[in-house]
Amino acid sequence: MDKFALASAFLSTSEPLASLKLCEARLQADARFPWIVLIPRRAGARELEHISNGDRAQLMDEIIAAGAAVRAMGAAIGRPVEKLNVGAIGNITPQLHIHVVGRRADDECWPDPVWGRGKSVAYDDKTLAAVMAAALPVLRSLQAAA
Amino acid sequence: MDKFALASAFLSTSEPLASLKLCEARLQADARFPWIVLIPRRAGARELEHISNGDRAQLMDEIIAAGAAVRAMGAAIGRPVEKLNVGAIGNITPQLHIHVVGRRADDECWPDPVWGRGKSVAYDDKTLAAVMAAALPVLRSLQAAA
Repeated sequence: MDKFALASAFLSTSEPLASLKLCEARLQADARFPWIVLIPRRAGARELEHISNGDRAQLMDEIIAAGAAVRAMGAAIGRPVEKLNVGAIGNITPQLHIHVVGRRADDECWPDPVWGRGKSVAYDDKTLAAVMAAALPVLRSLQAAA
Repeated sequence: MDKFALASAFLSTSEPLASLKLCEARLQADARFPWIVLIPRRAGARELEHISNGDRAQLMDEIIAAGAAVRAMGAAIGRPVEKLNVGAIGNITPQLHIHVVGRRADDECWPDPVWGRGKSVAYDDKTLAAVMAAALPVLRSLQAAA
């Protein structure tokens, strides 16, 4: 079996946040939305059906935790999340990954989904540090053993 | 606790397909894509975090089955699915629901997600009957007791 390696597309569009039991949790480098991408560490997986039942249960737990972390990120910058958007798409980057995005009725894309819309906006260092600091404690209980 | 009722938006955009253990499975009335919508029968749920752990495990099973059903729909009309797209969005219709959409590189929206893009195309009766007949057996094992 091939060894898991993160697709290069994730390296250029997101920042490492935490290694959870199943997934690499990465912060999408787009200041328009609090947004976490979960990538299961399973080589070759492109669809949810490609991972085991046990992995899917763990993935669901990590999606719920990522949602809470995204809510914490929004709260930390004074823009509380009003709706979570969760998507496993992968039409462009086929490696299995799940987006967890915090949405508000006043955000740039509302009510459309965010994928493939508009241009991403870079975080300034201070805001990036603030959202990272807000997200991390929420994910801690699901982190992989070091 | 309120009684579950399907949001009216689903009635006008989709056809009833099957009552699964957790969800109402409905066929999206859009001939551009083989597409099933799963709506958990849980009153008031708007986010994945609003349903129990047990319900989320069942939902994951029903998402996998809906993916297989969507693949069967595509195969039945000579357009095999190349990628599944799964999304829980709900920015417009807040009642918790999960889209399972079969995509191909030659479809109208590829590689963009389908939500909020283009205009839906009505099925003709014969094609609708064919995709329904293809989807139903795949969902049978997860159907609620009558």
